[in-house]
Order: sequence, then C-alpha cells, then structure tokens
Amino acid sequence: MQRILSTEIPGKEKQTVTIAGWIHRRRLLKSVAFLIVRDAAGFSQVVITDPAVREQVEALTEETVVEVTAQVTANPAAPAGVELTGPQIRALSSAVGVHKPFELHRPELGATMATQLDHAALALRHPSRATALRVSAAAAAGFREALERQRFVEIHTPKIVGTATESGANVFTLDYFGSPAYLAQSPQFYKQLMVGVFERVYEVGPVFRAEPHDTARHLAQYTSLDAELGFIADHRDVMAVLTTVIAGMVATVESRTAVPVPAVPSEIPAVHFEEALRIAGAPADEPDLAPAHERALGEWAVREHGSEFVFVTGYPMAKRPFYTHPQPSDPRWSNSFDLLFRGLELVTGGQRLHRYEDYLAVAPAPEKLAGYLDGFRYGMPPHGGFAIGLERFVARLTGAANVREVTAFPRDLHRVTP
Amino acid sequence: MQRILSTEIPGKEKQTVTIAGWIHRRRLLKSVAFLIVRDAAGFSQVVITDPAVREQVEALTEETVVEVTAQVTANPAAPAGVELTGPQIRALSSAVGVHKPFELHRPELGATMATQLDHAALALRHPSRATALRVSAAAAAGFREALERQRFVEIHTPKIVGTATESGANVFTLDYFGSPAYLAQSPQFYKQLMVGVFERVYEVGPVFRAEPHDTARHLAQYTSLDAELGFIADHRDVMAVLTTVIAGMVATVESRTAVPVPAVPSEIPAVHFEEALRIAGAPADEPDLAPAHERALGEWAVREHGSEFVFVTGYPMAKRPFYTHPQPSDPRWSNSFDLLFRGLELVTGGQRLHRYEDYLAVAPAPEKLAGYLDGFRYGMPPHGGFAIGLERFVARLTGAANVREVTAFPRDLHRVTP
Repeated sequence: MQRILSTEIPGKEKQTVTIAGWIHRRRLLKSVAFLIVRDAAGFSQVVITDPAVREQVEALTEETVVEVTAQVTANPAAPAGVELTGPQIRALSSAVGVHKPFELHRPELGATMATQLDHAALALRHPSRATALRVSAAAAAGFREALERQRFVEIHTPKIVGTATESGANVFTLDYFGSPAYLAQSPQFYKQLMVGVFERVYEVGPVFRAEPHDTARHLAQYTSLDAELGFIADHRDVMAVLTTVIAGMVATVESRTAVPVPAVPSEIPAVHFEEALRIAGAPADEPDLAPAHERALGEWAVREHGSEFVFVTGYPMAKRPFYTHPQPSDPRWSNSFDLLFRGLELVTGGQRLHRYEDYLAVAPAPEKLAGYLDGFRYGMPPHGGFAIGLERFVARLTGAANVREVTAFPRDLHRVTP
Repeated sequence: MQRILSTEIPGKEKQTVTIAGWIHRRRLLKSVAFLIVRDAAGFSQVVITDPAVREQVEALTEETVVEVTAQVTANPAAPAGVELTGPQIRALSSAVGVHKPFELHRPELGATMATQLDHAALALRHPSRATALRVSAAAAAGFREALERQRFVEIHTPKIVGTATESGANVFTLDYFGSPAYLAQSPQFYKQLMVGVFERVYEVGPVFRAEPHDTARHLAQYTSLDAELGFIADHRDVMAVLTTVIAGMVATVESRTAVPVPAVPSEIPAVHFEEALRIAGAPADEPDLAPAHERALGEWAVREHGSEFVFVTGYPMAKRPFYTHPQPSDPRWSNSFDLLFRGLELVTGGQRLHRYEDYLAVAPAPEKLAGYLDGFRYGMPPHGGFAIGLERFVARLTGAANVREVTAFPRDLHRVTP
C-alpha cells in the first residue's frame, strides 16, 4: 500500500492508510497503548487496543522505524483531529533496546551540549534541531534565488590553496602530495577573479578557520554565502544587492518554516563609522566597534528607523583587508560595510580595489599572489561583494544561543567527530 | 547613464546607449577602428572613426575594461544586425600593456593545458571555458530543483573528519589543532545519518581525493552532487529518483545554455552485472567492468533501446563499499548500480545496509565509527542514494576531453595554484 505522510492523514477519515516513521513516543497505559510516529512532515497518533499488537509494541523501543497500516478515525482530542486505530505494525529497522542519552519527545534536549554533539545522529532528530536545519536550507535557497534573479552565476572554487588566503593566521595546514597547502579561509580571491568571467558570481560552500577560540559563535568550518559583482559605482551598489538578498532569504524562511522572521526595510538605514562611534557614545579615535557599541547601534536603528537591521559604512582602512577600496574623499576610511542585525554583525562586505597598480602597492606578498593579481593585470572592473555566515544568520534568526545548535555536525577546537 | 547589456542593444536603433565590458578584440584598420566588447551576456561591435577616440583606443589593449556610450546603428553585416557608432569611451580598469600567454578572440585557446591553468584568471574568460562553467551552474541548479520538488532537504556536512571516510587510501591528512584529521572523500556517512532526520537529503559540495593518478578525469577536489533517501523498497526506487534528477539537470542545461543535450528516457534501460558481462563479451568471472566493456554497453543501449544512458545493477559485493546492501536473492551480488552515459560511468549509487547488527558485522573498525553507527543503533529505515561528479557530468555533456577544461581552478597531483 502506498505510504502517505502524517500531514496527509486529515481528510481521510474512515479510510485505511499506511504511514511510516520513527516511534517518537510510546505510552503503555493499562487498557490502551499509544504510539506517536514521527515522519519528515510531522506526527501521527496510533491507538493500540489489540493485545497481540500491544505485545508487539512492547518490544519496540522509541526511535524504532515502523510502517503502520490503520484506519483513520476522527478524534477532536488528537493532534490535527485524527488518529490511527486498529493498526498493523511492521518494524523496518533494528529495534535494539538501547539506553538513550536523552529523550526526543521532551520540548528541550535535556543534556549538555557535549552530549548532544556526541550523539548528533540522535539529537538532530529533535524537532527544534531539525527546524533550525530547515531554516538553514531555506536561507541558502533564498540566497541563491535572489542572486539568480539578478544575473549572478554560481561558482565552485578551490578549498585547498597554495597560499593562506588573507593572512597566515588561523589557517589549517595539510599535506598535499608531500608539500604543505592550506584550507581556504574564504573564496575571496576566486570570486573576485570570476567577476572577470561572469561579472556577477556567488558561491555557497564551506570555509575553514583554525579558530583558537572556544566560544558560542566560532566554528572551525562554516558555510559561507559569498557574492561578488562588477561594474559598481561604489559599495552602495553592493549594499543594495545585499538588501535584496537578505529580504529573499528571510522571505524563503518565512514561506518554508514557522519561524518568526524580522521585517527587512527596502532601504536599510546606514551610518558612517564616525557617526556610529558618536551614536554608540564611543571615543572618536576608537579603531573598531566593540560588541557594546554594536548593541547600542542596534537599539538606535530600532528607535530612529524602526529597523532591526543597520549598515555601518566606512570602517577604518587599518582594520580592513588589503584588497579593500579606500573612501575616495578620505583614505583613512574605506568603502566597506558591516550589516548589523539585532545589534550583532551579520555580514561584512565592501568595494574592492580593482586596478593592478593598486594591488602591487598594497598586496602583502605579490610574488605569492601571482595567480590572483593576474586577474587585475588583464583588466577588472570596479567591483565589490559580501559574505554571510550561514550558521550565524540562522542562529540570530532562531534565537539559538550557540551556533552549534544550528549546525549539523559542528567542528571546533575540541571536536572533529562524529 | 544606465548601462545596458550587449543583448539589449538590438531594437534600440538610433538611440544613445551605454554598455560596459572587456575589449575582446581590437582591430585598427587604416580609416576605421573596431572594438569587440565582451560582457557577461555577449558581444558588441563598436566602430571608431573619430581620430581623437582612435588615438585613445590605440593605448587600450585587449582585456581593458571600458564603458562605451554611443549611438545604436543598424548594420546587417554586424553581429545581431547592429553596431555602436560615434562612441565616447572610458577605461574602467588599468590598461597595462601586458603580453598575454594566449588570445581570447581565437576560437580555441592556443596554449598548452598547463599554460591555460597557470593563467586561469584569463583563460576562464574564453567563451568556451565560460560556457562550460555556465553548464556546470545550470546542472547544479537542475539537480537541486529536481530534488526540492521531491521533498529533499539541503544539508551541509563536515569536510574535516576524524576518520578517513571510506578507506584509508587517497585521503589528505591535515593538522587539526595539533592532531591529525582528514579531508572528507564523500559526505556518505553524514547523508545517511541525515536520512534519520529529514528522510530525503541532498548536498552540493566539495570532496577531496589524494589521487596519485595524473589523468584527464581525476581531480584532487571536485564537486559532488549527493542525494540519499529513506523508505525505499530497494535500489530501484533510488534509480527512479536519479532518472528524474538527470532529466532535470539536462533540462536546465538546455534552457540556460546553447549546449546540445541528450534525450533522457523516462525509464532508462537497466541490465544486471551478469548480463552486462555477456553483452560486453567479457568472461563470466570478471569482477568489474573495464572501460571497453562500458563502451560496449553504451553501444548496446543505443542499438537496443535508443538510449545514451544505461544502468548496470547488481555489481559484485566484493567490489562495493561495506555499507552496500546485498542482493537478497543472491548475496554475491549487490543492490547497487552505476549509470553509464555514452559508455562512461557517470553516477554510482545503491541501497545501503540499514540495520545496526548488519553494520557491526561488516564495518571495518566499528570503534572508530561510533558516531556513524549511532544512527543505525537508534533506528534507520531502508535507504539508498547516489553521487554525481559535477565536473565529469559537464565534461561528458560538453565533450571536453579533460575534466580540467570544465573546472574553474582545478587541483591535481601537480597543481595547487592559482
């Protein structure tokens, strides 16, 4: 019999249907037993009164995979107003009576983060964790859709590089056929070069940081949503594209999940770094924004503009990577920006240098970057771009306290398994 | 003035427009000069008769980025029937008079593969190379669309792993905060575990093989299109999904590019390995199909079924990885398959084991695979999946002799730059 999903049961009252899924919860009462069966779409309630079936169910522990053929019966007290009665049950997986480190039917995973991560194959089945990963998938889909609509072409770039991408710090070293090589910290150089081919490009892929920090927001591998576009006037053209991208990501999350999403203004308020320091009450010679300053800016944007998003532009050149384009009117500042969401940095981007001679003047080791500088030597238009950390975006959106809660199998200072 | 694309010029005769792009070709004749300007959409022909503009153009070498404001003039002899006359030209990039290792306006890149790869930033601008990468982007988009339509959820899995994924061979080792770790050879284990969460999952991401072979089809990093689905009867359900996926990929390539595509039958012919040996005229005790056998099968499929695609099923268990599900009727054979396209292997897939006790019996080092085996311990449905190598797919479709021709910045035994 053709299997249907839990969400397809309502409306089929009095019919016989077959569902399949995991025993999410088993309740053995005196005269009746209940199974809550979880599938990818939701939950079904199965009612068992037949002693022979009850005996069978007593041997099947939670998380056993079952196929259930039963009658759909209206019951206003059941979830979605229906339950399955008179079931025939077939176990599809092993029904190993294992002790579980936590129970999936509780609203919260009652275990330490380390225990959850040690048993990721189980923990990710918890509805809250699965929902976060659905938000992640929706956000990536929204990112791609927004860019495809604007002529961006998807690229795939090397994750193994001969030169540490932006600096020698926090880079993983590997043995590449007997010689040292490195894991790419970002696709920055490659996406810039590909502007020379397609004008507008994007990539969704892993980046690697040998972060020595053990915090709630650092991962050794995360998914970077990168975009780069040519023929811009300056960084404001990049910010305009980014605004449409954030709006697209949020819209896709809203359409695919039940997670509440923020409003994205059609024009996100923007303040220059100098002004941002004043708003945050920081000294005028402060070289960067501290977390407290970012929070103050977030509050200011809500108060003054009714926006949970705010751009800070013009960050000091000294704090930005070498390929950053200076602000033409005052080269202490840059044509770069950060996008803050609820008082936290969500995206970094800006205009890049595009003239070969400018790169020769600032590149830290031009002889090591020949393949990169080639692109500028042969002609590159004014361009810029941005990078969104997918896991941080999802953590901010879902309110997760730790980025590990929204990552399938996180990698950090202490963890390389499972 | 708002820039338009080269493809937007026809129909704007007698109007003044602004285009921008790269000087693809410059021809300085006696009384007139021509620029062919390349943008992401195509080419425009600019005609220069004004001596002052000609003098300016003489200093701008090919690949200089220019913005051209000019009149649209009908000319039946020009590409698309229009050209740009009376131009004002502004250089947007450096116009460094560099010697180029090859010329982009020739139909073929007249240089060795090594020279092309050394200067990838330039070579990728050649229309043939850019087209191959557009085919690659279209194929990945078609893969995702076909699966999203069938309830598959996108996942992102670790590329750094604590245990060599499938075997110890051909794996890159890295220094992970002072301990050894490895680059993932495939997302196999993770996509299987995620079947326990979403039932149906897919991933588009890099995989790494320390291939000691220097051939036209091996890369040290390639893009793997992976899918895995639960609640299958056997491998034939996986083959049915794969058939829709290949059809979707081909359809998207057809809709986005001018590359000729093959017909994908709604049911691709399938032959069992035993039968495949007979068709190929190979001895019955042959343990695997040699390239000549695959070619013979490809010819047979065209001859007998009018199909450029053919499935071979039931490969000997001895030749398949430990997680492969045996053929229930005869455990010498497996519920696995390869998909051949034009006589070459394009996809590998099959049904996997799903019972914990079966894994304990066959896993090469169960104690090292605890995080993987966890998923089966807690209950996993019958499932299977497949992996498509994106670069090989694109090479077969475009007829590229070397997979490096369809890869932006390939990595191989000898190359880790640019």
